[in-house]
Amino acid sequence: METTRRDLLKGMSGMALGVVVTSGLGALVGCAPKEAQAAQATATPQPQPQFPWPYQKVDAVAAAERAYAAYYQGGCMYGAFEGILGELREKVGGPYLTFPSAMMKYGAGGIAGWGTLCGALNGAAALLYLVLDGKVANPIISELFAWYGSEELPNYKPKTPKFDTIATSAANSQLCHVSVSTWSAKSGFKTGSPERAERCAWLTASVAKYVVELLNQQADSAFKAAHNVPEDVKTCLSCHGKGGQVENVHATAQSSCTVCHTDIKPNHPSK
Amino acid sequence: METTRRDLLKGMSGMALGVVVTSGLGALVGCAPKEAQAAQATATPQPQPQFPWPYQKVDAVAAAERAYAAYYQGGCMYGAFEGILGELREKVGGPYLTFPSAMMKYGAGGIAGWGTLCGALNGAAALLYLVLDGKVANPIISELFAWYGSEELPNYKPKTPKFDTIATSAANSQLCHVSVSTWSAKSGFKTGSPERAERCAWLTASVAKYVVELLNQQADSAFKAAHNVPEDVKTCLSCHGKGGQVENVHATAQSSCTVCHTDIKPNHPSK
Repeated sequence: METTRRDLLKGMSGMALGVVVTSGLGALVGCAPKEAQAAQATATPQPQPQFPWPYQKVDAVAAAERAYAAYYQGGCMYGAFEGILGELREKVGGPYLTFPSAMMKYGAGGIAGWGTLCGALNGAAALLYLVLDGKVANPIISELFAWYGSEELPNYKPKTPKFDTIATSAANSQLCHVSVSTWSAKSGFKTGSPERAERCAWLTASVAKYVVELLNQQADSAFKAAHNVPEDVKTCLSCHGKGGQVENVHATAQSSCTVCHTDIKPNHPSK
Repeated sequence: METTRRDLLKGMSGMALGVVVTSGLGALVGCAPKEAQAAQATATPQPQPQFPWPYQKVDAVAAAERAYAAYYQGGCMYGAFEGILGELREKVGGPYLTFPSAMMKYGAGGIAGWGTLCGALNGAAALLYLVLDGKVANPIISELFAWYGSEELPNYKPKTPKFDTIATSAANSQLCHVSVSTWSAKSGFKTGSPERAERCAWLTASVAKYVVELLNQQADSAFKAAHNVPEDVKTCLSCHGKGGQVENVHATAQSSCTVCHTDIKPNHPSK
């Protein structure tokens, strides 16, 4: 995207930073000292843009397409984050013009290849907390995570894909390793294959699209969770979660406990 | 932190943004049109600060103390990230003055309470990609993750703690749920207890301290990994990882496979 002076001015108008920079740098561009001093006198140092940053409804398919392209530039976390932020950069400008999206490349392969959290989810959650208050963002993150854990994904096919068809799977987890291995078992493709990379690219696009849909619902005050924590997980957490008899799990939600705890005996919790 | 005009000027000098803002806003503070035009003529729109952002060595204990305090303001991810970024904000200024650290609160409790990736690690990894090129950051992230998975933590006691002693444990994982439940089993404290919160606060401080130590080593060209992927994990990945006979795991490192795969039979891989 080419940035024009107009974009920058439009952008800066939404930033508290504007006043400060104006006062601080006035002298450097040749203002008369008196004028610079007058500007300084009215300036209040507030370097941070207002937080959370302003959200305006963007196109979900455009975000998905941008996410798909960004995946191949910097992985799943960067893809999901930049897919949405790129749309906001163009539409809103302002603080989005300076956000260093490239930092989000760290989440690829579940953080630098460690297979932990799916980067598309990590990037989406980061974006949600950038544009929404945490109390508003949390139910949307939970909807996203529950959707990711239970739906057959990817559910978005990019307009110019590298492969015409990609198998779908329900991850039953938010973890990169579990999500990818589950898909690999179902599709028959190796985890190091280009088909797996394409699956993750489609998945990144699917996540970006769904997050924008949820954000747009929220912007219309119409967000409502459509995916819930499964009943068997609720049963586990009723004992193991906060306030339970065996309070040894620090989590309020999961898609599945038995996806890792494969050794739970049928007569559990009897010893 | 109170931000002075001097901080801002110091900070802006390191930003490509400086030239643009100068040119764009000159007229707004009352410069003579001719002078503003002259400034504009030399300006090239480059709204992004140079990336990655400049790192200067900071004090590891100061970062740990800041992380501990930040944990109680916004959780583990925010704590680790803000612990280090806050030091850079004071020492380097520049782009750090405007970074919306509060967005990092999303990682608390393994992302909004889902128990996935430890937020302290998530925040630390984000920070590392903000100040280092990815190729330089990845080995440091791997060192951090391997250290986290194998060391008895927390290993930093804040100067004014809420509890005088906190039990330590080796997490054997980078996941919030596993890390916390392992500590809970060893310490005997419930996962919803104030002692558990304090353990995570000390852990957040420990992570911030170790990351600064690693960053300072890197700044001196003296970084060397001290923690490696365990041999048994390497054995697993030799078959299940990239290029292996059964290539169904999309990860290059883990602290343990059997922490989740508890049903591996002694005669594995025989069927």
